[in-house]
Amino acid sequence: MNRDDAWSRLNEWMGTLADLDGAAAVLEWDRETIMPPGAAEARGAQLATLAGLRHRHLLDGSVSDAIDVVAGSDDPWQAASARIAVRERQRAERVPESLVRALAEQSSRSVATWADARPAGDVDAWLSEVGPLVALTREQAAALADGGDPYDALIDLYEPGTTYAMLDPVLADLAERVRPLVDALAGTGGPALPTGPWDEDAQMAISLEVARDIGFDERRGLVGRTAHPVTMGLGAGDTRLSTRVDVTEPLSCIMALLHEGGHALYDQGIPEERRRTLAGDAPSLGAHESQSRFWENHVGRTPEFWEALSPSMAAAFPEAAAGLAPADYVRALNRVERQPIRVESDEVTYDLHIVLRTRLERAIITGDMEVADLPDAFDAGLHELLGVTPATAAQGAMQDIHWAAGIFGYFPTYTLGNLYAAQLAEAAEAAVGPIGAVLAEDGPAPLLAFLRERVHGHGRVMETPELMRQATGSDLSADPFIAHLERTYSSTSSLS
Amino acid sequence: MNRDDAWSRLNEWMGTLADLDGAAAVLEWDRETIMPPGAAEARGAQLATLAGLRHRHLLDGSVSDAIDVVAGSDDPWQAASARIAVRERQRAERVPESLVRALAEQSSRSVATWADARPAGDVDAWLSEVGPLVALTREQAAALADGGDPYDALIDLYEPGTTYAMLDPVLADLAERVRPLVDALAGTGGPALPTGPWDEDAQMAISLEVARDIGFDERRGLVGRTAHPVTMGLGAGDTRLSTRVDVTEPLSCIMALLHEGGHALYDQGIPEERRRTLAGDAPSLGAHESQSRFWENHVGRTPEFWEALSPSMAAAFPEAAAGLAPADYVRALNRVERQPIRVESDEVTYDLHIVLRTRLERAIITGDMEVADLPDAFDAGLHELLGVTPATAAQGAMQDIHWAAGIFGYFPTYTLGNLYAAQLAEAAEAAVGPIGAVLAEDGPAPLLAFLRERVHGHGRVMETPELMRQATGSDLSADPFIAHLERTYSSTSSLS
Repeated sequence: MNRDDAWSRLNEWMGTLADLDGAAAVLEWDRETIMPPGAAEARGAQLATLAGLRHRHLLDGSVSDAIDVVAGSDDPWQAASARIAVRERQRAERVPESLVRALAEQSSRSVATWADARPAGDVDAWLSEVGPLVALTREQAAALADGGDPYDALIDLYEPGTTYAMLDPVLADLAERVRPLVDALAGTGGPALPTGPWDEDAQMAISLEVARDIGFDERRGLVGRTAHPVTMGLGAGDTRLSTRVDVTEPLSCIMALLHEGGHALYDQGIPEERRRTLAGDAPSLGAHESQSRFWENHVGRTPEFWEALSPSMAAAFPEAAAGLAPADYVRALNRVERQPIRVESDEVTYDLHIVLRTRLERAIITGDMEVADLPDAFDAGLHELLGVTPATAAQGAMQDIHWAAGIFGYFPTYTLGNLYAAQLAEAAEAAVGPIGAVLAEDGPAPLLAFLRERVHGHGRVMETPELMRQATGSDLSADPFIAHLERTYSSTSSLS
Repeated sequence: MNRDDAWSRLNEWMGTLADLDGAAAVLEWDRETIMPPGAAEARGAQLATLAGLRHRHLLDGSVSDAIDVVAGSDDPWQAASARIAVRERQRAERVPESLVRALAEQSSRSVATWADARPAGDVDAWLSEVGPLVALTREQAAALADGGDPYDALIDLYEPGTTYAMLDPVLADLAERVRPLVDALAGTGGPALPTGPWDEDAQMAISLEVARDIGFDERRGLVGRTAHPVTMGLGAGDTRLSTRVDVTEPLSCIMALLHEGGHALYDQGIPEERRRTLAGDAPSLGAHESQSRFWENHVGRTPEFWEALSPSMAAAFPEAAAGLAPADYVRALNRVERQPIRVESDEVTYDLHIVLRTRLERAIITGDMEVADLPDAFDAGLHELLGVTPATAAQGAMQDIHWAAGIFGYFPTYTLGNLYAAQLAEAAEAAVGPIGAVLAEDGPAPLLAFLRERVHGHGRVMETPELMRQATGSDLSADPFIAHLERTYSSTSSLS
């Protein structure tokens, strides 16, 4: 088979894969936004059928020769597609369909139990389902690892190219440097904004304005509203993001929009003509999160961003926003608190929650800890790292959906996103000037252009560590993130 | 293989088919309602991939034995599923995938050309694409017919169990009896309602009220808004209908809601536990249309329906509806006119448009007429049947999307729906009393209960002619429809 024929055959195979993934994303978007409650079971079956067909398609032996030929291509996009195809097929081969199915079924049961048991912090109920799920997940990790480190095999699902050995020293360094910052900053910032009411339609209208302003292309996507903000790629030309609306305060809506907007700009920045290939995507969740955090934290917390937005706020909320200055929004956003809930955490404390989870879940997967010991270990660890103790397991080990869903190895990607975002912000400042000044003079466009060139346009040609090394000039490091925290919070605290 | 094992195997196979159909319906609903314009190509590819997988799944040889065993079942639902499986697989075998693909591609091209060429009535442009499409459709018809009548083979796609030989005498009888009615009624009814503005949100709110009132279950579906009203079943527990909104008049919105509501009630009336089987659906488009026409014409044009709705109209549209009595709505709805556009036709003239199309498309498919002769034949036929001549081909042979999309054999199902609806209305009156009186006393519930028992609850166990024979006590006939027209229009015209 010559290389053109091989590439053409591989494209055909990848196109079907992209279509199945896009179709599943449409079904998921619909489920998150408008699906009637009675459809839940049927939708689950439809998604399971698509997943089964995807699995079978992944293992299609007739494309093997084409992959082998394309793997030797000197076109980096072609070679990357072949490399990812090999990896995806290897995963599919290693995890038997019976285990995939058992995981999906136990995960559904476990999530349902978690949702019921969490409010009361009913640890026994949670353990009764998450226990068997952990057993299956260990089995999956061992199958994927094929003799290697089982936790690395799970990280690899979300963050290919990164291992626990790479992560561990960076997380340790981060924790050590963040803890004194928390000591210095806890209780600073604020006060919160007045409780409104902040008109819900006006919040969505402002969100759309912000999305357009940062460069989101509405012809190739849309902005929706969901309980849990999300971004999805539904195929070429179809990137959707959502935000949430809380009538008592508008910052949650706008910050979620910026966060999801960062993901969406990444998705829209993948070259359209690559979208039906395996290389036409982001290389990892950490890379994706670097984009959401960039816009949320390095743009959305600047005084200049709020200088630009506050006339729109005043016009959209003539009563609720009356008398608020740009600095009021920034101060309300930059409040630092010791509290146990990850998703409600500020930018300073957030990563301590991740450090804890990463250590605990590694111990669970390697077998160094049993799941029954997780709740107590969680509470002890949170107290040690952050100086706060959860009142119940609902504020402790049971708070997140991830473990209840059998998702282990995912948490570290949040912190990778924070660190890479800070590295990118530093590189952007070197390239186009201080972010605040750029926003004040030219708006967000130069920042997007920088990210398009250094990150989005490369798709999945490189793994994330190499992509970020080329984009920022340095390896993964906590330095830029710590510097960002010190700079951002110096004005409102005893750091100054 | 014993019967239980065979039924279980067949269910597994049918479940995948149902999931693929449901997934495709979700993709289509999304496309019709919110899909961004840039996603059109990707969505087309996703739907084509799902269609290809469906085709391959249909032909899966490993289910043959199970189908054979279940075909002998004395459970009518099981036997019907096996019968339909045989038919669907036979169709898939007879039409090679290359022809399916060629039809889909040429249909896309032809529809795009039609959309561009229609406004100016550019017959040459239209013919340049619809000509090759007709050639492919003839090929498809011959393949499906396998030696039988090619037009019957196409009818069979939409209306299994009905042949042109059954249709032709009924359509001839219908045309002969409708034409004097048109002569007597043309120009009667009206006037139109005032042009408002009729608030768009209020129109959607009224639509939702009407949907709930006729028995639509919102837990298992939803009401949306589209340019072209549509009903879709997206799987068990997920029936969606849409209506259109015209700010200058509300009747188009409400009548479209009733029409689609009839389809939606049918879909929701299929027993949920049958939904993943081939028998768990309506047996034909004509059967489906009988339900939409029942609610639109036999309920929605009654004085009692408008008696009940007009307080809501007055409240929703305090200005636009001021001073309107129930009879004003009924009169505006029951205006009879000779005009060339099918979709704008009133209840009296509508079926003459269908009679014409049925005769013409049969001649095209059998080869008695060439597609180049269609525009002139259309104009001549419309003049002969209805006494009106289209000004351009945009009002003539080019007006509908069907032929431009390669859909032949579909048109007669509209008239079958009208005739079956009138037969059902007559049977309903015999069972529960005059429709107007029922509506006035008990609302729509007894009518829905009648349709649930006689039609919806039977799924696709019988073909439509037998289902309707059992439901109404008689074979397909124009008599009840003509009687309905005479009764409805006698009060407003020279018929009285």
